[in-house]
Amino acid sequence: MDLAIDLEKEMSLRVQTVNQFVEKYLSDMALPQGNAIAELRKSMLYSATNGGKRFRPVLSLLVAELFACPIEKVLPFAAAVEFIHTYSLIHDDLPCMDNDDVRRGKPTNHKVFGEDFALLAGDALLTEAFMLLAKNYADSGFLVGRLTELVSEAAGIRGMVGGQAIDLRAEEKQMSLEELTHLHRLKTGALIRLSVEGAAIIAGAKPSDIESLKKFGEGLGLAFQVADDVLDHGEKDQDIRSFTGILGLEGTKDYLQEISDETMTELRKVSNDAAMLEYLINFNQSRKA
Amino acid sequence: MDLAIDLEKEMSLRVQTVNQFVEKYLSDMALPQGNAIAELRKSMLYSATNGGKRFRPVLSLLVAELFACPIEKVLPFAAAVEFIHTYSLIHDDLPCMDNDDVRRGKPTNHKVFGEDFALLAGDALLTEAFMLLAKNYADSGFLVGRLTELVSEAAGIRGMVGGQAIDLRAEEKQMSLEELTHLHRLKTGALIRLSVEGAAIIAGAKPSDIESLKKFGEGLGLAFQVADDVLDHGEKDQDIRSFTGILGLEGTKDYLQEISDETMTELRKVSNDAAMLEYLINFNQSRKA
Repeated sequence: MDLAIDLEKEMSLRVQTVNQFVEKYLSDMALPQGNAIAELRKSMLYSATNGGKRFRPVLSLLVAELFACPIEKVLPFAAAVEFIHTYSLIHDDLPCMDNDDVRRGKPTNHKVFGEDFALLAGDALLTEAFMLLAKNYADSGFLVGRLTELVSEAAGIRGMVGGQAIDLRAEEKQMSLEELTHLHRLKTGALIRLSVEGAAIIAGAKPSDIESLKKFGEGLGLAFQVADDVLDHGEKDQDIRSFTGILGLEGTKDYLQEISDETMTELRKVSNDAAMLEYLINFNQSRKA
Repeated sequence: MDLAIDLEKEMSLRVQTVNQFVEKYLSDMALPQGNAIAELRKSMLYSATNGGKRFRPVLSLLVAELFACPIEKVLPFAAAVEFIHTYSLIHDDLPCMDNDDVRRGKPTNHKVFGEDFALLAGDALLTEAFMLLAKNYADSGFLVGRLTELVSEAAGIRGMVGGQAIDLRAEEKQMSLEELTHLHRLKTGALIRLSVEGAAIIAGAKPSDIESLKKFGEGLGLAFQVADDVLDHGEKDQDIRSFTGILGLEGTKDYLQEISDETMTELRKVSNDAAMLEYLINFNQSRKA
């Protein structure tokens, strides 16, 4: 049995589940009257259904499955995290940020809907993430409060937005390994860890398992960034904000091995059998794109 | 006794309370390391302490007082709504929106910190609003869920952001009274109503009082817009998106009287004595600026 292909199939089933939920939610939500509001919904849908990998929400689904938690229970949270990821991409692509015209082979949001509506679509998706939490986890007062806290921590100045600020203001000189790790931990790591931790909490995992999964999520997020840099080596020669720029190609491969091993160790502390999540770590180490 | 002057003094005491809370919260919040993150905090503080009228949070405080609810209980919610108001001003001022260089006599956020940091400061303030709710109302599962829902509804595509979308796409022709009222209800009315309704819920008001106060908040928000248009009449001659443009000056004054009366009627349904809130309605009708 070819595990790599099986993983791909298993992942793609879950991607479909996420896609369906996201599209249905945004299409069906009741809105005030007006053509402009209908256009804003289109702008949100355009970016939220733009063929992303759904890495974060699929991670949430896999963690829920680990504890035999029904997918339906974790899907709204998974979609909330994906909304935040989507909003961050829309705002990142704006001319005043990275000024990108193309994302995933399609024109960026502001190229289609204008900068003003791209800005608003991002704002609306961020706000809608919290609506998803409030509407779906209010049965448990603990859950809705804890998830709202974790999401705002991971998405705001203490997490993703803080990481973007560091990235924007990074000087044009070589970062240290510590600085680059700090940047990635906030900019991309915070949401990935959140997708794992939040799902574990929703699934009712015990505190020691949540703790291990948190470290697994943090490690996996970093491992993906490091693997990206290994794959991009040569393309971005001497990139001052890459692990290969700091450690060299061989050094970075060793670092990837080290992080992957640590991440696997954390995952194996979890009581339940996490074969799919183990595959993810191995898959990342050997991926070609 | 001069009621107008007393009201001003009473309002200014509450403005100070809000100012102190907002400044202390943003200055004291524990953040990850980094000069860029410190700069982002400065950008958030710059706009959040920019001498605003604090109309929304003061309304929340007044509603809490109506039910003898301690100010401390309602302040985090009041600050959350103010953070959302502040973020919306920062994003509104951006070149891709209204392109304003000055707000309240000072350079706008992006003029001081750059467009990229202004965008992020707005994103971070919106996200932090939900952190305030999660951190302060989680004792009651009902409260944290309900407030998160109400805030996302009023702030997102169903409220403020939806109103901004309508405003941006409004054609260059005379709006109808219905269209203009719909625009204001979403763009500015939603947050004003929220500041009243949320405070009533936190204070434990009974459902019929919450309902009356909601209508009071909605009416007061609209009355302020209408009074603004009366004051601006002449300045913005024949403005196609003003009540005076639709109803004429005298017609708009009659409309203001009508809304103010309705708003007063709703307020008087509330069991407790709401003298301060009554003054607000009267003050708005006779204000000169």
